[in-house]
Amino acid sequence: MLTDFYELTMSNGYLEQGVGDKIAVFDMFFRTIPDDGGFALFAGLEQLIDYLKNLSFTENDIEYLRSKRQFSERFLDYLLHFRFECDVWSVEEGTPIFPGEPIVVVRGPIIQAQLIETMVLLTINHQSLVATKSNRICRAAAGRSVFEFGSRRAQSYDAAMLGARAAYIGGCDATACTISDREYKIPAVGTMAHSWVQMFDSEYEAFKKYAEVYPENCTLLVDTYNVLTSGIPNAIKVFNEVLLPKGYKPKGVRIDSGDLAYLSKKARKMLDDAGFDYVKIVASNSLDEIIIRDLLLQGAQLDMFGVGENLITSKSSPVFGGVYKLAAIVENGEYVPKIKISESIEKITNPDFKTFYRFYSKETGEAVADYVTLFDEVPDVSKPVEIYDPVATWKRKTLENVEARRMLVPIFEKGRCVYESPSLERIKAYCAEQVDRLWDEVKRFEHPHRYYVDLSDKLWEIKRRMLSEMNRVTGGSAHM
Amino acid sequence: MLTDFYELTMSNGYLEQGVGDKIAVFDMFFRTIPDDGGFALFAGLEQLIDYLKNLSFTENDIEYLRSKRQFSERFLDYLLHFRFECDVWSVEEGTPIFPGEPIVVVRGPIIQAQLIETMVLLTINHQSLVATKSNRICRAAAGRSVFEFGSRRAQSYDAAMLGARAAYIGGCDATACTISDREYKIPAVGTMAHSWVQMFDSEYEAFKKYAEVYPENCTLLVDTYNVLTSGIPNAIKVFNEVLLPKGYKPKGVRIDSGDLAYLSKKARKMLDDAGFDYVKIVASNSLDEIIIRDLLLQGAQLDMFGVGENLITSKSSPVFGGVYKLAAIVENGEYVPKIKISESIEKITNPDFKTFYRFYSKETGEAVADYVTLFDEVPDVSKPVEIYDPVATWKRKTLENVEARRMLVPIFEKGRCVYESPSLERIKAYCAEQVDRLWDEVKRFEHPHRYYVDLSDKLWEIKRRMLSEMNRVTGGSAHM
Repeated sequence: MLTDFYELTMSNGYLEQGVGDKIAVFDMFFRTIPDDGGFALFAGLEQLIDYLKNLSFTENDIEYLRSKRQFSERFLDYLLHFRFECDVWSVEEGTPIFPGEPIVVVRGPIIQAQLIETMVLLTINHQSLVATKSNRICRAAAGRSVFEFGSRRAQSYDAAMLGARAAYIGGCDATACTISDREYKIPAVGTMAHSWVQMFDSEYEAFKKYAEVYPENCTLLVDTYNVLTSGIPNAIKVFNEVLLPKGYKPKGVRIDSGDLAYLSKKARKMLDDAGFDYVKIVASNSLDEIIIRDLLLQGAQLDMFGVGENLITSKSSPVFGGVYKLAAIVENGEYVPKIKISESIEKITNPDFKTFYRFYSKETGEAVADYVTLFDEVPDVSKPVEIYDPVATWKRKTLENVEARRMLVPIFEKGRCVYESPSLERIKAYCAEQVDRLWDEVKRFEHPHRYYVDLSDKLWEIKRRMLSEMNRVTGGSAHM
Repeated sequence: MLTDFYELTMSNGYLEQGVGDKIAVFDMFFRTIPDDGGFALFAGLEQLIDYLKNLSFTENDIEYLRSKRQFSERFLDYLLHFRFECDVWSVEEGTPIFPGEPIVVVRGPIIQAQLIETMVLLTINHQSLVATKSNRICRAAAGRSVFEFGSRRAQSYDAAMLGARAAYIGGCDATACTISDREYKIPAVGTMAHSWVQMFDSEYEAFKKYAEVYPENCTLLVDTYNVLTSGIPNAIKVFNEVLLPKGYKPKGVRIDSGDLAYLSKKARKMLDDAGFDYVKIVASNSLDEIIIRDLLLQGAQLDMFGVGENLITSKSSPVFGGVYKLAAIVENGEYVPKIKISESIEKITNPDFKTFYRFYSKETGEAVADYVTLFDEVPDVSKPVEIYDPVATWKRKTLENVEARRMLVPIFEKGRCVYESPSLERIKAYCAEQVDRLWDEVKRFEHPHRYYVDLSDKLWEIKRRMLSEMNRVTGGSAHM
């Protein structure tokens, strides 16, 4: 029932007009990359599969819908006995994705393919957003650990839980969110808040008490009063007095405010001088990829980063704008391509039943271009492939010695799930490996190189033909 | 179990150190207003109450926690038999709130008051964020209807459902989210997507079919091909051919792309000329308060607005930064105030067990200032009250003829809920009425007037004393 009301009114309408069984093909794709980045990451498929496997309507749902007095009894009966019958293809979680590519394709009776739109988008948009942001932040950390600390600023409960999952796929090492540890096996970490320090009569006593309870895993928060004159000296004292005598090694100190570059360098020196060169310095406080990069450029002595609101909400770019559009319908056994024109050029869709390929260089293993094709096209890479920019068509590039990987894999066949989601660990590893195979130029934070996404000649010809046909019928653009 | 892991490690620590039963007072407050606005709106209390009423731990939860090997058996046993025992005060949903005010106050055994931090923040932060944004957008619409259309871009499922609730409190008239209608009685609305139009052989046929199924509630989406040469003419034709003959009046047309000012003016004229001056024009397409204001300034002929991603994620300012800080602990029956200093000045907290008042002018009914006090202080408004800026203390203002309203109301007493949430309709009406009582200067979108939030003399004196004491102990600021 988490669906836009219009999915229901449309589905009811299709049924009433006798076209509910018509086979339709819908694509999910997106138009712009969050943060003007060079690529996004696909995530959320496992939750989408769960949803589609369990899609059904209870008597209560039907009762509620009946009360809206807009739906026919035939439709309500259809919902009560709903059984998902569509085919679904998708890219795999952790895959780098680019604008204009069909990342999820749904084929089936239009009444069903329409109905699932809201949940397909909601599920994939959210997790892809956070995975993409997480990867940016983790790349900025350049090999250092990043922890997801954002639950309290997440946009509600699922956003915290599933956001932690997506952040883990994108590269984070751990989360503060306990339930994400239990549900998804993402290691949960956490030490102390300022309230612990304030609760005791002095910072020294607060540290001492903490070290007594957690001698094995002792990271102390050193900025409640003053990092350098109070926090670090007290931490060193407690390390020496409580931990070392019992044979435990302290783990770290955390700085949550102030100038992290300055404070971390001073703190590092103080810790080193006291013989604690192995104690890690953890930073938190409104971090993101830009701040982390700049801190490290300035020589900040930081080993780990706790990242909160900027990651869990993708604050600088909090919307992943995936859309779900009709691409074709089947009439008399033939696919009839469909296109949405629009006054806004960027809203024009790619028509027809499609898939796409990624070309990897056989020499370097790097991804060099993506190639959107009709669903049954197979690019011939035995000879050089010429690709060109779909907007600036005079810009061409010839690819040689590449292998083509078909990116959409079958997820549902006639409503039956045929895909088993890999473990989260495997998704995370796959993601890291695929990001590794992208050019550095695509991974730049600002003004990255635009990765090539080409349409096959056949597909481009269909689109061109439909656009000029449409232009003829509607008399051109409305103004300007 | 949706809690930051450190809440659990700290609570375990408190218990282990024998201080778990110590009575502590925590405040929730926030530091900056989203979008640099003049005020925020408080929302989410009903969900917070539900959470606190049902807070408990299952055997499975305990089993999971035991597996982390960081918690004592005594603590796990405590959780298994957990019973919430705190007092909670809160402002009511729909109330305008300002930085630095205690909007939720929790008093109880520190082991419990600590444990609920993550959920208090997560719940209130999310809904307050969306209610605040919704109110900005609805004010821009200046009396026209605003629909919440953002489910597909929400940051996961609860964000869609509860976001629709918060948007309704802030002023939206309806939502596209079906489940929010069923769960919270927020009217769900929806008509058609582009896929409906593309599905049929022509736009005319698509409109005709739709009008046949929904003659009573017929709003047509007119921008699939070309609004002015195709969409509006086809809509008029179908209104005349299908609806009028059967005695139905068409409801509206929706434009989802292109230049909404230009298109709506032309469309209005075409509709008026055809005798459909009562047909509403609905606009959607990445709207927010700034775009809506500018469209209306340009004379756009728009009657209703569907607002998606910019509302549901509060895109331009997607984080509500509420925090939850220890304010006092009880030692030998006395409140001992606690403060967090920090290198970052804006992170310094207001100490002690507090409440706050809002002064309303008896003449105009307008809210003129808020006054943060010790919990048992009662301001004497029988004579003029002098308030001053807590930063620029030379800025003073004398208030006369005001009434003082105590803003925090009791929600839980010793763990028992003593508050009944009003209906959503009443919350929405209360919110509108309270926003109405704010100065126009506070409601400006850009550079609004800063509303006065003063500390009582007693509270200010406690804070001043603690700050200078702390400065003496820690030796001043770390650098600069």
